Parts: sequence; structure tokens; C-alpha cells
Amino acid sequence: MDLGLLHDLAQPNTTKIILCSLDGLGGLPRPATGKSELETARLPNLHALAKRSACGLLRHVGPGITPGSGPGHLGLFGYDPLQHPVGRGVLEALGIDFHLKPGDVAARGNFCTVDAQGRITDRRAGRLATDLCVKLCEKLRSVTVDFAEIVIEPVKEHRFVLVLRGEGLSGRVSETDPQALGVPPLHARALDPSAERAAAAVNQFVERARPLLRDAAQANMVLLRGFDKQPDIPLFPGTFRLRAAAVAAYPMYRGLARLVGMDVLDTGPTFADEIATLERHWADFDFFFLHYKDTDKAGEDGDFDAKVAALERFDARLPDVLALGPDVLAVSGDHSTPSILAAHGWQPVPALVSSAYCGADHVSRFTERDCAGGALGILPAQDLMPLLMANALRLAKYGA
Amino acid sequence: MDLGLLHDLAQPNTTKIILCSLDGLGGLPRPATGKSELETARLPNLHALAKRSACGLLRHVGPGITPGSGPGHLGLFGYDPLQHPVGRGVLEALGIDFHLKPGDVAARGNFCTVDAQGRITDRRAGRLATDLCVKLCEKLRSVTVDFAEIVIEPVKEHRFVLVLRGEGLSGRVSETDPQALGVPPLHARALDPSAERAAAAVNQFVERARPLLRDAAQANMVLLRGFDKQPDIPLFPGTFRLRAAAVAAYPMYRGLARLVGMDVLDTGPTFADEIATLERHWADFDFFFLHYKDTDKAGEDGDFDAKVAALERFDARLPDVLALGPDVLAVSGDHSTPSILAAHGWQPVPALVSSAYCGADHVSRFTERDCAGGALGILPAQDLMPLLMANALRLAKYGA
Repeated sequence: MDLGLLHDLAQPNTTKIILCSLDGLGGLPRPATGKSELETARLPNLHALAKRSACGLLRHVGPGITPGSGPGHLGLFGYDPLQHPVGRGVLEALGIDFHLKPGDVAARGNFCTVDAQGRITDRRAGRLATDLCVKLCEKLRSVTVDFAEIVIEPVKEHRFVLVLRGEGLSGRVSETDPQALGVPPLHARALDPSAERAAAAVNQFVERARPLLRDAAQANMVLLRGFDKQPDIPLFPGTFRLRAAAVAAYPMYRGLARLVGMDVLDTGPTFADEIATLERHWADFDFFFLHYKDTDKAGEDGDFDAKVAALERFDARLPDVLALGPDVLAVSGDHSTPSILAAHGWQPVPALVSSAYCGADHVSRFTERDCAGGALGILPAQDLMPLLMANALRLAKYGA
Repeated sequence: MDLGLLHDLAQPNTTKIILCSLDGLGGLPRPATGKSELETARLPNLHALAKRSACGLLRHVGPGITPGSGPGHLGLFGYDPLQHPVGRGVLEALGIDFHLKPGDVAARGNFCTVDAQGRITDRRAGRLATDLCVKLCEKLRSVTVDFAEIVIEPVKEHRFVLVLRGEGLSGRVSETDPQALGVPPLHARALDPSAERAAAAVNQFVERARPLLRDAAQANMVLLRGFDKQPDIPLFPGTFRLRAAAVAAYPMYRGLARLVGMDVLDTGPTFADEIATLERHWADFDFFFLHYKDTDKAGEDGDFDAKVAALERFDARLPDVLALGPDVLAVSGDHSTPSILAAHGWQPVPALVSSAYCGADHVSRFTERDCAGGALGILPAQDLMPLLMANALRLAKYGA
């Protein structure tokens, strides 16, 4: 649905919406039992909620396409992820809660190892310790270039973020990482004429970084890729006329919520902290994005039992969420992370929408297989937000 | 599906199609019983028909979007309602069975009350009696303006239709209704250069109406909005190569059928009259749009039991429709009108398609919940017409 049309139809109300994103929610059956994580876990509260909800499956990008966390969440927030790509550099910056400014160009940096001839021998510099990464980033901060301010932030191990800040910069810059060994890093090139300044700034930065790193043991050079600006995206609160808050302990999800203009609330590191934050701010917002990370972590580790346990911990907390009395509650996720894949998957993600007007279907268990037969059908993730708005009686009729 | 492609594939046959639109068909469970109107009603004929039909749910505009009657029916007729918006003025004219000509610009008019300084004190003039509205419209018919013929038709209470008829008029005119009290009506402005003449005609009309209404008690001024022309829409009979007739007692639905070029048959006010009309003209057409209004009326009134009774009355008449032996029979609606909402809703609408080639599914009850699991899936309303054409063996193969 066109965001402009949704904006035209959006109307004020006093109703409240909670969108729970269980990261990596969807799974696959463990071959030994034929049951998925959701089918294995004891989830009395989720199943009871599914019974009085409309259920379905969300597809975030397209059939067979595995979403990253960025596209997955943009879909949940109502955006077509294919229309609003988020560059890797921007995601890396969001992932460390770095506040990008409009016009900033961000890139992913790696410390790497080069030989005496400048040829790459290790693209990740032996995954150096994070505290060494922090020290090397300190050194790089002394670099200045002609057309931009340089901002450097360490991430983890060999990874850092480079931000170019200044007037008239473009993210259409080729990467310096040849993604191969035995060759030197590449020169950055402008991929269109608007990026000449940015490419020149990148090449200056690399040349001036080189002598500073010469003695830094194995981490004696940098590779840069994923140059991009923040996408120029219609902001969520304005589009849907909602005071919107994000409750997320992990930086990446805070960053994604900030990207679309949500207020990002201070919260502690646990899901209990997140729920306390939600309770504390209940009066202040119309819409809450509540993020639960543990499901994805266990799935990425390939730990089926840990994912089952993470689902059960969420289920135990669900009554606290329900106790707030949201007019509309949605539970879904940003992508599947089947434990047997130990990675994000393309499988569509169970979703439920609960409200006084949701129209419960025959689904009485919140599982992949059951939700496939629900009243929501299998729908693009960006169609969820219009449904939540409608259930909150916040959308006017289209046409008389 | 592209209408041009459908036109290319459409081929003649002697088969007959009936499309029954139960206005506001879809509903929601009544909280006390957990059952919707369709689940509560005794509908032996509809359920038996559903058992031998392919079933599904229709979405007319998009997930979460509540359709008005215009978009709802355009969807049933095979048009994408987002590509063919129908303005409010046009709908108001259709709703009184006014025959708009190509190029006419129609607007909704309100009689309103202004104080001695010309400031609006009541936008609806106390919802004056319809017979007074008729008399005031008579007065306004004496107004002439420079660039257009003026046609005025009363609607109901404070509402009337204004039509500007003439060469080179555009509907891109801003409304004169400020939608606020304590301020005077607005001047009409041309929203693009092509609308200068129409805007001038509107402003002349308003200035010349003012003295005529000065003594008309509380209804001493007019407000105009929703200026628009008939949409330039490919006509239904040509697109589908069908002799198409509409059997509808209510003016709005007659108007919508006329808009797409159907023959609108004279009929009496009851559904029994409509069925008699259908029978009388059975030999003359290939396609019949049969409209049943009572379901929507009861839903809009929030009267669950009345909607159940309306469904049962339709069910009792269904054998008469079946007795005609249509090759293809579809039963669906233009939107949901859940009694618990007492308004149009966004919920997708049950649909069944019955023919010798429909491929019956597992659905054996014509309800929202059951149809969600049917073979048609959840599909855009405009996809119904190609299915009916195919089931009538009136569409050629695509590609060799």
C-alpha cells in the first residue's frame, strides 16, 4: 500500500498499538522430532492469544529471499524493503547506536594485514582483539582530509565504522576491498559524478591512514566497503500520525527505529528491563515497537533447545504486555532463523493480530504450520502496519 | 490483471454469469457468542452452494483499507479501485441516479447557515427537511453563470448535487467548505490551470446564489466540495465482451453500474422485484450484476440480529437464482459491514465461485473463517472477474 495514501487515510484516535518483534522468530522442524521450535516449546499464553487473533505468515522481501535485520524491520514498520534499501555502512553505524546526521556517508571498515609490497595477506587481520581495534581507531582519528570531516568508531574485533561528514558528499563510491588475497587494496572510484568529492576523501583517508598503521603488527592497513547514506525515507510518526516509541536493548534495532523517526527509549539490557520501560512510558505514546532478541541469537547459534527456551521465556512475559491493555497487539518477527540452518532463513514468519475487530480465525496455535491457514493469509510484511492501523480504528474509509 | 490483456483474451460464448453482491457481506463475531453474522444465520442454501464451489476472501483495496461503496463495487467489476478513483461529487450524483454526461463536473453541496457577517454558524443548516431542500434547489436553478450550464438536484436533508456542464471544464477545483465554524465559505480556486473556467463558474454560482437564499431562514448559504468528473474508465461490456446488465434497486449501485457501461434494468424496490427482473431479462444478457442491499443496512445500523435475518432472507431466495441455471454464479460483497463496528470495515469478504469447472475445495460453510481456507485464497477483488470469465469459458489461453 502506498505510504502517501496511508498518510491521507490516517486519522487520530486514543487507541494504543504494540508491535512485538521476536527476532528470527520462524523456525523449521528438527528432523528427529518433526517439530519446529514453536511446535516444541510450551507456549500457553501465545497459543491462547493466537486463538483469539487473526493469524498468518509474513514475507518481508519476497518468496525465497532471506531478509537481513534491516529489511526485516523496515518491512514490519510498513516500508517495502526493496524500495528502501539500507546500505551496509549505514547498518554498521546503526548497529553501534551511532547517530548519523543527514548527508553523512558511512562505510564498514576492516583492519587487514598487508605484506611489504602492500598485498593483502589477511582481510580481517586475524580478527584482532576489540581493545586493539579501539586503540587503532584512536590513531585513525588524527587523519584529516580535504572535503569532509572524518569520524571513526570501533565496532568489534577487526571492524570499525568510517563516517564522512560534510557538504555535497555522495555514497556512490566503489569499495576498496578487493575481496581477494595477494592483491593490494583498490582505489575508491566515484560511481557517478556526484561522488567525486567523497571518493577523493576516501582515497586521501586511506593514504594518510597507511603510515599511521605501518607498525601496528598485523593490523597494518584498512579496507572500506558498503559506502552509503541514510535512505531518504518517509518518517514513521508522520506517515501514520502516531507518537511512536521503540523499546529495544540492542543497538541495531534502536538504530533502525531511529532511522524511521521513532523515539528510542532508554532501557536496560534484559527483556524484563524492556517491559519495565514499556510500562513506564505507556501513557506517552500511541505505538510501541518492542524487540526481543533471544530467539534470533539461539537460532544463529544453531541451538534448537536454546531457541525453544527463549520462546518460553517470551511466553512467560506475554501476560505483562497484555496487562497494559493495548487496543491492538501484533506478535511477529523480522525474519526466520531456523536453528537447523544456524542462520537467517527465507521462510515466512508467523504473525498474529489481536484486537476487538481482528476477526479470529480457526488458528489456535502460534506455529508456522498453523498460521499458514490463518485469516491474514501469507502477506508482505509491509501490509501489517495498515492492518494494525485499521484495527486501532485509525484509518478512514477509502472512497465514499 | 491488466484490462487490456483481459480484453485481448476475452472471447464469445453462450454461457451466462451472475455476480451477486451482498452489500456489506462480511462481519465479525459478536463477543457474547464468538460467532459472526454468517456463522449465526441459518443458511442451508448458501452453505450447500459453498460446498460445491471454490471459496475465498476478497480484498477490495488493500490490507487494512476500508472500501467505500464506489471502490468496493469497482473492485467486483474487475477494476483496481486505486487506479480508478471516483470523486465524492460523482458518487453523490450516482447516488440519486443522476445521469452524468462525459465532461460534467459534479460536486456535493450542503445548505448551511451563515450569520450577518457571512460567517458559518451551522455547516448543515440544522439538517433541514428534505422538502425544504427541494424548494431551495428550485430557487438555485435560476442561477446562470458564464462558462457552464448549472444543474441542481436535491439529495436529502441539507444535501444537494451541483453539476457544471459545458466545454473545457475540469474538476480540479478546491472546495468552498472550510470545514470549520466562525469563518466565511472559501473561494473556489483552480488547482491546476485547466480548472480556471470551472473555478470561475463556481464562484459566480456561489455569489449569485447568496442573495436568492438570503431570506431562506437558516439555510441561507451553500458549501461545495468533492468536485470531480466521471473517471475515464474502460467500459465493462467492451472490456469483457459481455452484454452486461445491472439489477439493483438502490440508486448508488445503479449509478456505479452505469459508470462502467452496464445496462441498468428497471426494477422494483424489493429483492423479490430484483429476482423477477433478472428472470424477465434472462435471455437478453450474458452477465448480470445482482445487488442485495439489506445486509449492509443492518450492519450500518449495528443491528446484528437484523443482519442475520437479512442473510437468511437472501438464502431463502437463492434457489430462485440457481433455478435460472447460470453457468457461473459468484456470491460475494463490496466490503464488510460488521454489526459490531456499525460501519464499513476493512475485513476481507467471503466469496464463492460455482461452475462446472470451479474446483470445489474443503470449504463447506460460507463464513469468514471457513472461506479463509478456501481454494481461491485471499485475493484482490479485481481478480474475481477474470475467474468468472474463465469459469464461463470466455477467456482464451495466454501464449501458445
